[in-house]
Amino acid sequence: LSAGQRLRVTDPEGEQVADLVAFARGDSGEWLSSGRTFDYQSSIRLTTGDRLWSNRSRVLLVIEDDTVGLHDFLLAPCSAEMFRLLYGHDRPARGCFGNLAAALAPHGIAPDAIPTAFNCFMNVPVGPDGKVEVLPPISRAGDHILFRAETDLLIGLTACSAPNSNNGRLKPVAWEVLPARDTAAAGAEAASA
Amino acid sequence: LSAGQRLRVTDPEGEQVADLVAFARGDSGEWLSSGRTFDYQSSIRLTTGDRLWSNRSRVLLVIEDDTVGLHDFLLAPCSAEMFRLLYGHDRPARGCFGNLAAALAPHGIAPDAIPTAFNCFMNVPVGPDGKVEVLPPISRAGDHILFRAETDLLIGLTACSAPNSNNGRLKPVAWEVLPARDTAAAGAEAASA
Repeated sequence: LSAGQRLRVTDPEGEQVADLVAFARGDSGEWLSSGRTFDYQSSIRLTTGDRLWSNRSRVLLVIEDDTVGLHDFLLAPCSAEMFRLLYGHDRPARGCFGNLAAALAPHGIAPDAIPTAFNCFMNVPVGPDGKVEVLPPISRAGDHILFRAETDLLIGLTACSAPNSNNGRLKPVAWEVLPARDTAAAGAEAASA
Repeated sequence: LSAGQRLRVTDPEGEQVADLVAFARGDSGEWLSSGRTFDYQSSIRLTTGDRLWSNRSRVLLVIEDDTVGLHDFLLAPCSAEMFRLLYGHDRPARGCFGNLAAALAPHGIAPDAIPTAFNCFMNVPVGPDGKVEVLPPISRAGDHILFRAETDLLIGLTACSAPNSNNGRLKPVAWEVLPARDTAAAGAEAASA
Protein backbone atom coordinates (compact mmCIF):
# COMPACT_ATOMS: atom_id res chain seq x y z
CA LEU A 1 0.00 0.00 0.00
CA SER A 2 1.60 3.27 -1.06
CA ALA A 3 1.13 6.51 0.88
CA GLY A 4 -2.35 7.86 0.19
CA GLN A 5 -3.75 4.63 -1.18
CA ARG A 6 -6.64 3.11 0.65
CA LEU A 7 -7.43 -0.46 1.57
CA ARG A 8 -11.04 -1.52 1.87
CA VAL A 9 -11.58 -4.75 3.78
CA THR A 10 -15.07 -6.16 3.28
CA ASP A 11 -16.90 -8.94 5.07
CA PRO A 12 -18.87 -10.42 2.15
CA GLU A 13 -21.05 -12.83 4.14
CA GLY A 14 -21.02 -11.27 7.58
CA GLU A 15 -19.63 -12.44 10.97
CA GLN A 16 -16.10 -12.97 9.60
CA VAL A 17 -12.92 -11.60 11.14
CA ALA A 18 -9.85 -10.43 9.17
CA ASP A 19 -6.51 -9.93 10.95
CA LEU A 20 -4.38 -7.07 9.64
CA VAL A 21 -0.74 -6.23 10.34
CA ALA A 22 1.30 -3.41 8.83
CA PHE A 23 5.00 -2.63 8.51
CA ALA A 24 6.80 0.36 7.04
CA ARG A 25 7.71 -0.72 3.52
CA GLY A 26 11.43 -1.26 3.25
CA ASP A 27 11.98 -1.00 7.01
CA SER A 28 10.21 -3.83 8.76
CA GLY A 29 11.53 -2.70 12.13
CA GLU A 30 8.63 -0.24 12.16
CA TRP A 31 5.34 -2.02 12.79
CA LEU A 32 1.74 -1.29 13.68
CA SER A 33 1.61 -1.19 17.49
CA SER A 34 -1.49 -1.77 19.59
CA GLY A 35 0.29 -0.33 22.63
CA ARG A 36 1.19 2.97 20.94
CA THR A 37 -2.23 3.22 19.30
CA PHE A 38 -4.13 2.71 22.58
CA ASP A 39 -1.95 5.39 24.16
CA TYR A 40 -2.25 8.05 21.46
CA GLN A 41 -5.94 7.42 20.76
CA SER A 42 -6.81 7.04 24.48
CA SER A 43 -9.03 4.13 23.48
CA ILE A 44 -8.93 0.43 22.73
CA ARG A 45 -11.89 0.83 20.34
CA LEU A 46 -10.82 2.29 17.01
CA THR A 47 -13.20 3.43 14.28
CA THR A 48 -13.74 6.14 11.65
CA GLY A 49 -11.30 9.02 12.06
CA ASP A 50 -8.97 7.15 14.36
CA ARG A 51 -5.28 6.77 13.63
CA LEU A 52 -3.24 3.60 13.94
CA TRP A 53 0.33 4.19 15.13
CA SER A 54 3.67 2.46 14.79
CA ASN A 55 6.12 1.42 17.49
CA ARG A 56 8.10 4.52 16.42
CA SER A 57 5.15 6.81 17.09
CA ARG A 58 4.26 7.50 13.48
CA VAL A 59 0.77 7.23 12.06
CA LEU A 60 0.73 4.30 9.62
CA LEU A 61 -3.00 4.10 8.85
CA VAL A 62 -6.11 6.22 9.30
CA ILE A 63 -9.56 4.63 9.41
CA GLU A 64 -11.46 6.61 6.78
CA ASP A 65 -14.72 4.71 6.93
CA ASP A 66 -16.16 1.92 9.04
CA THR A 67 -19.67 0.52 8.73
CA VAL A 68 -19.25 -1.75 11.77
CA GLY A 69 -17.48 0.24 14.50
CA LEU A 70 -16.46 -2.82 16.47
CA HIS A 71 -13.02 -4.34 16.00
CA ASP A 72 -10.37 -5.84 18.26
CA PHE A 73 -6.76 -4.81 18.79
CA LEU A 74 -6.15 -6.78 22.00
CA LEU A 75 -5.68 -10.40 20.98
CA ALA A 76 -2.77 -11.96 19.12
CA PRO A 77 -3.50 -13.77 15.83
CA CYS A 78 -4.79 -17.33 16.23
CA SER A 79 -2.05 -19.92 15.73
CA ALA A 80 -1.40 -23.66 15.81
CA GLU A 81 -0.30 -23.33 19.45
CA MET A 82 -3.45 -21.40 20.29
CA PHE A 83 -5.64 -24.06 18.67
CA ARG A 84 -3.85 -26.71 20.74
CA LEU A 85 -4.11 -24.79 23.99
CA LEU A 86 -7.58 -23.25 23.78
CA TYR A 87 -9.41 -25.69 21.50
CA GLY A 88 -7.51 -28.94 22.23
CA HIS A 89 -6.92 -29.56 18.52
CA ASP A 90 -4.52 -32.45 17.87
CA ARG A 91 -3.72 -31.44 14.32
CA PRO A 92 -4.24 -27.70 14.48
CA ALA A 93 -4.58 -25.37 11.53
CA ARG A 94 -1.87 -22.75 11.19
CA GLY A 95 -4.40 -20.02 11.74
CA CYS A 96 -4.00 -16.31 11.12
CA PHE A 97 -0.50 -16.38 12.52
CA GLY A 98 0.62 -19.13 10.15
CA ASN A 99 -1.03 -17.40 7.21
CA LEU A 100 0.60 -14.08 8.03
CA ALA A 101 4.00 -15.70 8.65
CA ALA A 102 3.88 -17.52 5.29
CA ALA A 103 2.75 -14.43 3.39
CA LEU A 104 5.23 -12.09 5.04
CA ALA A 105 8.32 -14.35 4.96
CA PRO A 106 9.17 -13.48 1.34
CA HIS A 107 9.19 -9.83 2.43
CA GLY A 108 11.76 -10.44 5.14
CA ILE A 109 9.39 -10.50 8.12
CA ALA A 110 10.29 -13.25 10.59
CA PRO A 111 7.44 -15.01 12.42
CA ASP A 112 8.72 -13.65 15.75
CA ALA A 113 8.33 -10.10 14.39
CA ILE A 114 4.57 -10.43 13.91
CA PRO A 115 2.87 -8.25 16.51
CA THR A 116 -0.70 -8.20 17.76
CA ALA A 117 -2.90 -7.67 14.69
CA PHE A 118 -5.73 -5.22 14.16
CA ASN A 119 -8.58 -7.72 14.01
CA CYS A 120 -11.20 -6.24 11.68
CA PHE A 121 -14.77 -7.09 12.74
CA MET A 122 -13.64 -9.09 15.79
CA ASN A 123 -15.98 -8.69 18.76
CA VAL A 124 -14.04 -8.82 22.03
CA PRO A 125 -15.89 -7.06 24.83
CA VAL A 126 -13.95 -6.21 27.99
CA GLY A 127 -15.89 -6.49 31.24
CA PRO A 128 -15.54 -4.07 34.15
CA ASP A 129 -13.32 -6.70 35.83
CA GLY A 130 -11.06 -6.85 32.76
CA LYS A 131 -12.35 -10.22 31.55
CA VAL A 132 -12.46 -10.55 27.78
CA GLU A 133 -14.88 -12.65 25.78
CA VAL A 134 -14.82 -13.60 22.11
CA LEU A 135 -18.33 -13.13 20.70
CA PRO A 136 -19.65 -13.40 17.13
CA PRO A 137 -18.86 -10.34 15.02
CA ILE A 138 -21.71 -7.88 14.58
CA SER A 139 -20.70 -7.34 10.91
CA ARG A 140 -23.34 -8.15 8.29
CA ALA A 141 -22.80 -9.09 4.66
CA GLY A 142 -21.17 -6.19 2.82
CA ASP A 143 -19.92 -4.35 5.86
CA HIS A 144 -16.47 -2.87 5.45
CA ILE A 145 -13.65 -0.86 6.97
CA LEU A 146 -11.53 1.51 4.90
CA PHE A 147 -7.93 2.32 5.84
CA ARG A 148 -5.77 5.08 4.34
CA ALA A 149 -2.01 4.60 4.28
CA GLU A 150 -0.10 7.57 5.70
CA THR A 151 3.21 6.20 4.45
CA ASP A 152 4.35 3.36 2.18
CA LEU A 153 3.38 0.12 3.86
CA LEU A 154 3.64 -3.63 3.67
CA ILE A 155 0.26 -5.04 4.73
CA GLY A 156 -0.56 -8.57 5.87
CA LEU A 157 -4.24 -9.54 5.84
CA THR A 158 -5.90 -12.89 6.44
CA ALA A 159 -9.36 -14.29 7.00
CA CYS A 160 -9.46 -15.68 10.53
CA SER A 161 -9.84 -19.42 11.11
CA ALA A 162 -10.74 -19.47 14.81
CA PRO A 163 -14.23 -20.97 15.15
CA ASN A 164 -15.27 -18.86 18.17
CA SER A 165 -14.24 -15.62 16.51
CA ASN A 166 -16.39 -16.21 13.44
CA ASN A 167 -19.59 -17.68 14.91
CA GLY A 168 -18.52 -21.21 14.01
CA ARG A 169 -18.27 -20.80 10.24
CA LEU A 170 -15.12 -19.84 8.34
CA LYS A 171 -15.82 -17.54 5.44
CA PRO A 172 -13.80 -15.48 2.97
CA VAL A 173 -12.91 -11.82 3.31
CA ALA A 174 -12.57 -9.42 0.39
CA TRP A 175 -10.13 -6.55 -0.05
CA GLU A 176 -9.54 -3.85 -2.60
CA VAL A 177 -6.91 -1.16 -2.98
CA LEU A 178 -8.38 2.23 -3.86
CA PRO A 179 -6.30 5.07 -5.33
CA ALA A 180 -5.22 8.01 -3.23
CA ARG A 181 -8.11 10.44 -2.94
CA ASP A 182 -6.13 13.60 -3.77
CA THR A 183 -4.37 11.96 -6.67
CA ALA A 184 -7.67 10.80 -8.14
CA ALA A 185 -9.19 14.27 -7.70
CA ALA A 186 -6.13 15.91 -9.24
CA GLY A 187 -6.28 13.45 -12.11
CA ALA A 188 -9.96 14.21 -12.73
CA GLU A 189 -9.24 17.95 -12.69
CA ALA A 190 -6.38 17.51 -15.12
CA ALA A 191 -8.60 15.49 -17.44
CA SER A 192 -11.39 18.09 -17.42
CA ALA A 193 -8.99 21.05 -17.84
CA LEU B 1 16.27 -14.45 35.92
CA SER B 2 16.83 -18.21 35.79
CA ALA B 3 13.97 -20.69 35.67
CA GLY B 4 12.37 -20.91 39.10
CA GLN B 5 13.89 -17.71 40.42
CA ARG B 6 11.51 -15.00 41.46
CA LEU B 7 11.57 -11.27 40.93
CA ARG B 8 9.91 -9.05 43.52
CA VAL B 9 9.16 -5.52 42.29
CA THR B 10 8.34 -3.16 45.13
CA ASP B 11 6.91 0.34 45.11
CA PRO B 12 8.80 1.84 48.07
CA GLU B 13 6.93 5.16 48.28
CA GLY B 14 3.64 4.31 46.60
CA GLU B 15 1.99 5.54 43.38
CA GLN B 16 4.99 4.63 41.20
CA VAL B 17 4.84 2.58 38.01
CA ALA B 18 7.54 0.13 36.84
CA ASP B 19 7.56 -1.13 33.25
CA LEU B 20 8.71 -4.70 32.77
CA VAL B 21 9.64 -6.57 29.58
CA ALA B 22 10.92 -10.12 29.29
CA PHE B 23 12.73 -12.14 26.62
CA ALA B 24 13.79 -15.77 26.52
CA ARG B 25 17.44 -15.71 27.56
CA GLY B 26 19.65 -16.49 24.60
CA ASP B 27 16.80 -16.24 22.10
CA SER B 28 15.45 -12.72 22.06
CA GLY B 29 12.99 -13.60 19.28
CA GLU B 30 10.75 -14.88 22.07
CA TRP B 31 9.23 -12.05 24.06
CA LEU B 32 6.52 -11.36 26.59
CA SER B 33 3.35 -10.71 24.59
CA SER B 34 0.32 -8.79 25.81
CA GLY B 35 -1.74 -10.16 22.91
CA ARG B 36 -1.04 -13.82 23.74
CA THR B 37 -1.46 -13.20 27.47
CA PHE B 38 -4.86 -11.51 27.07
CA ASP B 39 -5.97 -14.44 24.89
CA TYR B 40 -4.81 -17.28 27.14
CA GLN B 41 -5.84 -15.61 30.40
CA SER B 42 -9.14 -14.29 28.95
CA SER B 43 -8.45 -11.05 30.77
CA ILE B 44 -6.57 -7.80 30.46
CA ARG B 45 -6.21 -7.61 34.27
CA LEU B 46 -3.48 -9.92 35.52
CA THR B 47 -2.81 -10.67 39.17
CA THR B 48 -1.86 -13.48 41.58
CA GLY B 49 -1.95 -16.89 39.90
CA ASP B 50 -2.05 -15.52 36.37
CA ARG B 51 0.46 -16.52 33.75
CA LEU B 52 2.27 -14.19 31.35
CA TRP B 53 2.83 -15.71 27.92
CA SER B 54 5.31 -15.27 25.09
CA ASN B 55 4.67 -14.63 21.40
CA ARG B 56 5.48 -18.35 20.95
CA SER B 57 2.73 -19.38 23.38
CA ARG B 58 4.99 -20.37 26.26
CA VAL B 59 4.53 -19.22 29.82
CA LEU B 60 7.44 -16.93 30.70
CA LEU B 61 6.33 -15.65 34.10
CA VAL B 62 3.73 -16.50 36.74
CA ILE B 63 2.49 -13.88 39.18
CA GLU B 64 3.03 -15.54 42.55
CA ASP B 65 1.94 -12.69 44.75
CA ASP B 66 0.47 -9.24 44.23
CA THR B 67 -0.52 -6.85 46.99
CA VAL B 68 -2.03 -4.34 44.53
CA GLY B 69 -4.02 -6.26 41.93
CA LEU B 70 -4.11 -3.42 39.45
CA HIS B 71 -1.55 -3.23 36.66
CA ASP B 72 -1.58 -2.31 32.99
CA PHE B 73 -0.60 -4.36 29.97
CA LEU B 74 -2.24 -2.15 27.31
CA LEU B 75 0.02 0.86 26.85
CA ALA B 76 3.46 0.99 25.26
CA PRO B 77 6.35 2.32 27.36
CA CYS B 78 6.57 6.12 27.54
CA SER B 79 9.18 7.52 25.14
CA ALA B 80 10.67 10.78 23.90
CA GLU B 81 8.16 10.77 21.03
CA MET B 82 5.30 10.17 23.45
CA PHE B 83 6.42 13.06 25.65
CA ARG B 84 6.50 15.30 22.56
CA LEU B 85 3.10 14.19 21.30
CA LEU B 86 1.08 13.87 24.50
CA TYR B 87 2.85 16.33 26.81
CA GLY B 88 4.26 18.82 24.29
CA HIS B 89 7.73 18.55 25.79
CA ASP B 90 10.37 20.31 23.68
CA ARG B 91 13.31 18.50 25.23
CA PRO B 92 11.69 15.23 26.24
CA ALA B 93 13.13 12.65 28.57
CA ARG B 94 13.87 9.27 27.02
CA GLY B 95 11.30 7.67 29.27
CA CYS B 96 10.75 3.99 29.96
CA PHE B 97 11.35 3.16 26.33
CA GLY B 98 14.71 4.90 26.26
CA ASN B 99 15.71 3.32 29.56
CA LEU B 100 14.76 -0.15 28.38
CA ALA B 101 16.44 0.34 25.01
CA ALA B 102 19.70 1.45 26.65
CA ALA B 103 19.66 -1.37 29.19
CA LEU B 104 18.78 -4.08 26.67
CA ALA B 105 21.08 -3.02 23.81
CA PRO B 106 24.15 -4.75 25.30
CA HIS B 107 22.06 -7.95 25.32
CA GLY B 108 21.33 -7.73 21.62
CA ILE B 109 17.78 -6.37 21.86
CA ALA B 110 17.13 -3.67 19.26
CA PRO B 111 14.85 -0.76 20.22
CA ASP B 112 12.34 -1.86 17.56
CA ALA B 113 12.06 -5.25 19.27
CA ILE B 114 10.74 -3.78 22.52
CA PRO B 115 7.08 -4.78 22.84
CA THR B 116 4.32 -3.42 25.04
CA ALA B 117 5.55 -3.73 28.63
CA PHE B 118 3.80 -5.15 31.66
CA ASN B 119 3.36 -1.94 33.59
CA CYS B 120 3.46 -2.85 37.28
CA PHE B 121 1.15 -0.68 39.42
CA MET B 122 -0.11 1.35 36.44
CA ASN B 123 -3.78 2.27 36.73
CA VAL B 124 -5.42 2.35 33.31
CA PRO B 125 -9.17 1.82 33.55
CA VAL B 126 -11.07 0.96 30.37
CA GLY B 127 -14.54 2.43 30.07
CA PRO B 128 -17.53 0.61 28.58
CA ASP B 129 -16.92 2.60 25.37
CA GLY B 130 -13.29 1.44 25.24
CA LYS B 131 -11.84 4.76 26.36
CA VAL B 132 -8.73 4.45 28.49
CA GLU B 133 -7.59 6.84 31.20
CA VAL B 134 -4.30 7.04 33.04
CA LEU B 135 -5.01 7.51 36.75
CA PRO B 136 -2.70 7.56 39.78
CA PRO B 137 -1.61 4.07 40.86
CA ILE B 138 -3.45 2.66 43.84
CA SER B 139 -0.20 1.16 45.18
CA ARG B 140 0.92 2.31 48.63
CA ALA B 141 4.42 2.35 50.08
CA GLY B 142 5.75 -1.20 50.33
CA ASP B 143 3.29 -2.78 47.93
CA HIS B 144 4.81 -5.36 45.63
CA ILE B 145 4.28 -7.87 42.88
CA LEU B 146 6.22 -11.14 42.74
CA PHE B 147 6.94 -12.92 39.45
CA ARG B 148 8.29 -16.46 39.06
CA ALA B 149 10.32 -17.27 35.94
CA GLU B 150 9.12 -20.40 34.14
CA THR B 151 12.20 -20.45 31.92
CA ASP B 152 15.53 -18.60 31.76
CA LEU B 153 14.78 -14.97 31.03
CA LEU B 154 16.30 -11.63 30.25
CA ILE B 155 14.27 -9.01 32.13
CA GLY B 156 14.12 -5.26 31.54
CA LEU B 157 12.67 -3.16 34.33
CA THR B 158 12.48 0.61 34.74
CA ALA B 159 10.81 3.15 36.97
CA CYS B 160 8.38 5.11 34.82
CA SER B 161 8.94 8.80 34.14
CA ALA B 162 5.53 9.81 32.77
CA PRO B 163 4.05 12.43 35.12
CA ASN B 164 0.42 11.34 34.64
CA SER B 165 1.18 7.70 35.32
CA ASN B 166 2.82 8.42 38.69
CA ASN B 167 0.55 11.09 40.18
CA GLY B 168 2.97 13.85 39.19
CA ARG B 169 5.98 12.70 41.18
CA LEU B 170 8.74 10.44 39.86
CA LYS B 171 9.99 8.01 42.48
CA PRO B 172 12.29 4.98 42.59
CA VAL B 173 11.23 1.37 42.36
CA ALA B 174 12.96 -1.50 44.13
CA TRP B 175 13.57 -5.03 42.95
CA GLU B 176 15.01 -8.20 44.38
CA VAL B 177 15.71 -11.63 42.95
CA LEU B 178 14.57 -14.45 45.24
CA PRO B 179 15.81 -18.02 44.89
CA ALA B 180 13.67 -20.73 43.37
CA ARG B 181 11.19 -21.94 45.98
CA ASP B 182 11.76 -25.68 45.41
CA THR B 183 15.51 -25.27 45.39
CA ALA B 184 15.38 -23.33 48.65
CA ALA B 185 13.08 -25.96 50.21
CA ALA B 186 15.28 -28.77 48.94
CA GLY B 187 18.30 -26.93 50.30
CA ALA B 188 16.65 -26.52 53.69
CA GLU B 189 15.72 -30.20 53.73
CA ALA B 190 19.22 -31.19 52.80
CA ALA B 191 20.63 -29.00 55.54
CA SER B 192 18.33 -30.48 58.20
CA ALA B 193 18.84 -34.10 57.02
